[in-house]
Amino acid sequence: MSVITSVRTADIRFPTSADLDGSDAMNPDPDYSAAYVVISTDSGDELEGHAFAFTIGRGNDVQVMAIEAVAQCVLGRDVEALLADMGATWSLLNSDSQLRWLGPEKGVIHMAAGAVINALWDLKAKRAGLPLWQLLSRLSPEEIADLIDFRYLTDALTRSEAVEILTRAVPSRGQREEALLVDGYPAYTTSPGWLGYSDEKLARLCAEAIAEGYPQIKLKVGSNVDDDRRRLAIAREVCGDGFPLAIDANQRWDVDTAIEWITALEEFDLAWVEEPTSPDDVLGHAAIARGVHPIRIATGEHAHNRVMFKQFIQAGGMHVVQIDAARVGGVNENIAIILLAAKYGLPICPHAGGVGLCEAVQHLAMFDFVAVSGDATGRMIEYVDHLHEHFVSPTRVVRGRYLAPMSPGASTEMRASTLHQYAWRELRVATTEG
Amino acid sequence: MSVITSVRTADIRFPTSADLDGSDAMNPDPDYSAAYVVISTDSGDELEGHAFAFTIGRGNDVQVMAIEAVAQCVLGRDVEALLADMGATWSLLNSDSQLRWLGPEKGVIHMAAGAVINALWDLKAKRAGLPLWQLLSRLSPEEIADLIDFRYLTDALTRSEAVEILTRAVPSRGQREEALLVDGYPAYTTSPGWLGYSDEKLARLCAEAIAEGYPQIKLKVGSNVDDDRRRLAIAREVCGDGFPLAIDANQRWDVDTAIEWITALEEFDLAWVEEPTSPDDVLGHAAIARGVHPIRIATGEHAHNRVMFKQFIQAGGMHVVQIDAARVGGVNENIAIILLAAKYGLPICPHAGGVGLCEAVQHLAMFDFVAVSGDATGRMIEYVDHLHEHFVSPTRVVRGRYLAPMSPGASTEMRASTLHQYAWRELRVATTEG
Repeated sequence: MSVITSVRTADIRFPTSADLDGSDAMNPDPDYSAAYVVISTDSGDELEGHAFAFTIGRGNDVQVMAIEAVAQCVLGRDVEALLADMGATWSLLNSDSQLRWLGPEKGVIHMAAGAVINALWDLKAKRAGLPLWQLLSRLSPEEIADLIDFRYLTDALTRSEAVEILTRAVPSRGQREEALLVDGYPAYTTSPGWLGYSDEKLARLCAEAIAEGYPQIKLKVGSNVDDDRRRLAIAREVCGDGFPLAIDANQRWDVDTAIEWITALEEFDLAWVEEPTSPDDVLGHAAIARGVHPIRIATGEHAHNRVMFKQFIQAGGMHVVQIDAARVGGVNENIAIILLAAKYGLPICPHAGGVGLCEAVQHLAMFDFVAVSGDATGRMIEYVDHLHEHFVSPTRVVRGRYLAPMSPGASTEMRASTLHQYAWRELRVATTEG
Repeated sequence: MSVITSVRTADIRFPTSADLDGSDAMNPDPDYSAAYVVISTDSGDELEGHAFAFTIGRGNDVQVMAIEAVAQCVLGRDVEALLADMGATWSLLNSDSQLRWLGPEKGVIHMAAGAVINALWDLKAKRAGLPLWQLLSRLSPEEIADLIDFRYLTDALTRSEAVEILTRAVPSRGQREEALLVDGYPAYTTSPGWLGYSDEKLARLCAEAIAEGYPQIKLKVGSNVDDDRRRLAIAREVCGDGFPLAIDANQRWDVDTAIEWITALEEFDLAWVEEPTSPDDVLGHAAIARGVHPIRIATGEHAHNRVMFKQFIQAGGMHVVQIDAARVGGVNENIAIILLAAKYGLPICPHAGGVGLCEAVQHLAMFDFVAVSGDATGRMIEYVDHLHEHFVSPTRVVRGRYLAPMSPGASTEMRASTLHQYAWRELRVATTEG
């Protein structure tokens, strides 16, 4: 028997606020950061699981400490048993009733559980010698269903419904896996649209994005409606009629304001409107969706767990399902959300950017394509060209498409030099030796 | 000008799990804990603000660290300015965009903001020489409205509606303040109903509670329906027909299970059913409410902010509004929630128990009575007879009623000997000197 001998954490922060990269109406000066975790064993294979929770700077130390608290649940345990039943392992990480009180299932304690389970997924995939998307896509429908905690979901999705959806996709998995290996998966870009950029930079970056082959561009909005109209007009002129232009308000509006503001922008033929109001406001999103019909509402990057996604979908407040690899409880909970979306016929278009979110979430979108929805129509993964150089196996986007990652693991391992150079504080270590 | 010179924190844990006090279906072994904060100034008056976030043990250190992160926003600032505009101070504590990402407005980072603003309220009330409920109840309607962040609320409650509700209560404030000073405020008790107790202990404690004058008793349920029926039958027999008996499922059920289970208990004439499912599931609570009509649904102790309360009320999933003093963003956000409840004609019946929650929340219920709803009919504060001896000005409940606290402050200051004896780790200190 081999056991988990150490859970190392690191507080990694990149000084991105200096360039206004990533600036939007709610987050004017993010310093993209990772509350990073490395899980080691005594199995002798020298493989480690790497993952992180994503934050935007201050408080990353709190997130690191939450990871350390949650990781106590697995330290010293039999690693083969943990990796063999990742559904039970997810429950283990989420079932300490004292830690649960800090959420429940939300905020730093839930993101911590997500980071730890994702590190275990990275380890499991490395052990299997497969990229995570391929590992997941080759599990049986029952094995996939076993990963999901159906508590609080059964009024919208039962285990047997999940198995049925997954089973339908089985016969054609192989051809989609092949298609991914040849063609990759669609990306869209938010790089041109940050609020801090000048009109000239916006126009230039839109033209570049189109030249690079991106099928959609997203602009940040919500600070000033006249600015938004001017910037959308520029983007529309550069991109041409019919080109998909989405906007992202980053939670800026109240419900009535959202309806007015979006209506004032509707002439620009919006592909979707993202995060129009509080990410907690299911009923608000549904009211906005009715008020601006047929414009589609996209949200999810701040929806904190499967219960929130369930409700957004039930209420008709989420037409585009924007999963995030590091907000909810990791791979397992995202699989539950992907299956919810599949049941209700909604597209998964993951949130990415930040640091490492593109690397992590590409596996989930590709798993969705191969093993769940079986369809990439209208689906795409956000892409922001930031900080990829810090990863051992960085995301590769070519002509507007994510290439299928082929390295074993979850692509969530940072380079040792990055961990050294961007450590905000000293590495902390918890070991079985105490 | 005097400034905030230090924010001290302490990790205080009581070993309550040893006695099964506080055991319920989701929280079998809580160690009631306080992530405690003390704010000091250089004003020379020797007054300090004391408050806490409540947790149930492990992870209390994470909560403490979150408080330290949020408190940086006020350290070194002009204390008179902070206390003079507590609405602006609340916004300051919640507006650091980097820290906000850790929620937003949920989990440990939001509870941390609540603890810090509550410590400032304690300081402000001590400076005024008034108990907090009286300080709040003597503010003008406009001053009270200034405390509230109406962002994300305006589709349910506008500032002018809030002022209107508050203004209606003004002429009769004096008589209600007097009534409180004479009669106190109704309490109900959960002490007899913990899951870990034997049938004999349940019967004995029910009889004692009635003898002590409590107008309502609450039982924990949700582990086994036959046990629940047996325990409810005992309680009903001891308490007699017509006596209000509420039950609390502590998030145990899925939506359909909740409807079945509650229906199986309906013959016991339930005063309310508390937390039937996930505290995030607004639509689920609404479906359960429809399914068990006319039995009332109570929830709120884990609803993480005003946006959640807004939706529960809009959807008809919350008939009894159970504010908690230490879950949302403190006094300010609870005032927003109290006004939402008033607009929709719903009673405030605060969650309490744990450690210090009775002490803290009594001020909010009494403020509601004097300055908002003007009505105590069907309203009562939970009471659990635990750990009050650790407070400088403990809650006093006599013949089933909370006596109005009269000591200046928010009743949230623990005794120095308790802070010394139950400190889980060393006191940490952050000061302006570095």
